[in-house]
Amino acid sequence: MARLDEIPKELLIDSALAHRMLVTFVREEVTKVGFKRALFGLSGGIDSALTATIAAEALGKDNVLAVTMPYRSSSPESLADAKLVADSLGIETIEVDITPQIDAYFGRKDVPTSEERIEQLRRGNKMARERMTILYDLSMSENALVLGTSNKTELLLGYGTLFGDMASALNPIGDLYKSQVWQLAQDIGVPEKVVEKAPTADLWSGQTDQEEIGYSYAEIDRIFYYLVDCRTEVETVISKGFDRSFVEHIAELLRQSQYKRRLPVVAKLGKRTIDRDFRYPRDWGY
Amino acid sequence: MARLDEIPKELLIDSALAHRMLVTFVREEVTKVGFKRALFGLSGGIDSALTATIAAEALGKDNVLAVTMPYRSSSPESLADAKLVADSLGIETIEVDITPQIDAYFGRKDVPTSEERIEQLRRGNKMARERMTILYDLSMSENALVLGTSNKTELLLGYGTLFGDMASALNPIGDLYKSQVWQLAQDIGVPEKVVEKAPTADLWSGQTDQEEIGYSYAEIDRIFYYLVDCRTEVETVISKGFDRSFVEHIAELLRQSQYKRRLPVVAKLGKRTIDRDFRYPRDWGY
Repeated sequence: MARLDEIPKELLIDSALAHRMLVTFVREEVTKVGFKRALFGLSGGIDSALTATIAAEALGKDNVLAVTMPYRSSSPESLADAKLVADSLGIETIEVDITPQIDAYFGRKDVPTSEERIEQLRRGNKMARERMTILYDLSMSENALVLGTSNKTELLLGYGTLFGDMASALNPIGDLYKSQVWQLAQDIGVPEKVVEKAPTADLWSGQTDQEEIGYSYAEIDRIFYYLVDCRTEVETVISKGFDRSFVEHIAELLRQSQYKRRLPVVAKLGKRTIDRDFRYPRDWGY
Repeated sequence: MARLDEIPKELLIDSALAHRMLVTFVREEVTKVGFKRALFGLSGGIDSALTATIAAEALGKDNVLAVTMPYRSSSPESLADAKLVADSLGIETIEVDITPQIDAYFGRKDVPTSEERIEQLRRGNKMARERMTILYDLSMSENALVLGTSNKTELLLGYGTLFGDMASALNPIGDLYKSQVWQLAQDIGVPEKVVEKAPTADLWSGQTDQEEIGYSYAEIDRIFYYLVDCRTEVETVISKGFDRSFVEHIAELLRQSQYKRRLPVVAKLGKRTIDRDFRYPRDWGY
């Protein structure tokens, strides 16, 4: 399998162990807060397909709801791949079109415009956030927790929308690099078509993450492995033979996107401030 | 002034000092990340009025943008109060109607319905999240950071929408209890009409927070002061003369809403997991 050949050796995982840990994680975290069911956005990509597979196993296929949320310019192939995944798992899907809400917002007199490049980013972010609002709305109507589907590579790059696709109650795959998502998805039987296709945020037709970001995930994951997991200094990573400008660029993206991985910053005035001193063991005491 | 008489003595603050600290906080946190401007939702209530006043002073009135986002059922009086605050500060306002986006979503065949009580909550949450998506969209078009306007009482009660009004880049007033917001707003010159009116989430006409929550903010703030700031045990708080069921109810709301004050829970697999081991001093190193 082509994808698997690309996985850097540093990043190979024990799939059977990771699989067991993630299924247990979803089951325990969902049930301990009184829920039986979970839902998530199913895009047709590998990240949400892996999440769907783990969730169906953890909670039972009848307790899992996959939500597809196409925009009018979304690729029909992505939607077909999402259906393929849902059918292979036997889970229920619900489709909610985001076109009416998005088109009701942009192009109005009271909404400021921007230059083309910024406008495209704004539309992508608005769509990602609209999808989040729908998942949280259905969470209430369907009595199901929202699962996140962002992988560790995206989260560290900041290649995602804050309070959009980065928002969830639980994220089973947020500590797996993209290369590791490939390995695990392949090993636990995600449909090959979904494992093999080029990663895309589906922001426009034919878009691929690699073109957008400029490097392959396998390369980026190796840099992150050294920078983040091994806490290796930038100069030391470069001395291993990586291109200087590449390493410096990735390190800069990591630094610049840190705000997306934090809670809102609250001005401290009192004795105990939210997310500063206000922490409890496992969040359960007073 | 009626409001001030209600402030519990435990919660009285040094307004001049708090004022200076919050103005400095906004100025430093906005400029250190390369921004000059800030924006926020201006509702006509006291929390966003206080935030507006601090922001205008910190950044200059020309660098502050107040966004009003009414729904068709929103109270015209709230909008008038928002204008009053903006005019008194001389800051720019922009009005973006959320009605078309909200009405494009509910009542469609592909969106599930609920019983009336749940439906009302869903609508309130969808509106709060729509407003967040607009603030973040304008953040990009106007090059301005999003300020939060949730006070500490709301945040600890969980009386707010996760990834809606609880979402922001910076929150200047998140460590001030509602009673302290009254005191500071009064002391730094927020228009008296706004300080004096009954707090409301404006979810329906005539709604007040106190009716919705069942207790006065002054009472709730005292309980929180002991439970949170002083880390007093529930039984010890009750022994100070508070009603048992009241204290237990507040403590339970605090516990049940803890998930709203955390980042999404990521399943740990690797050596360093986002928001667990992956932390840097002041978020600036690698």
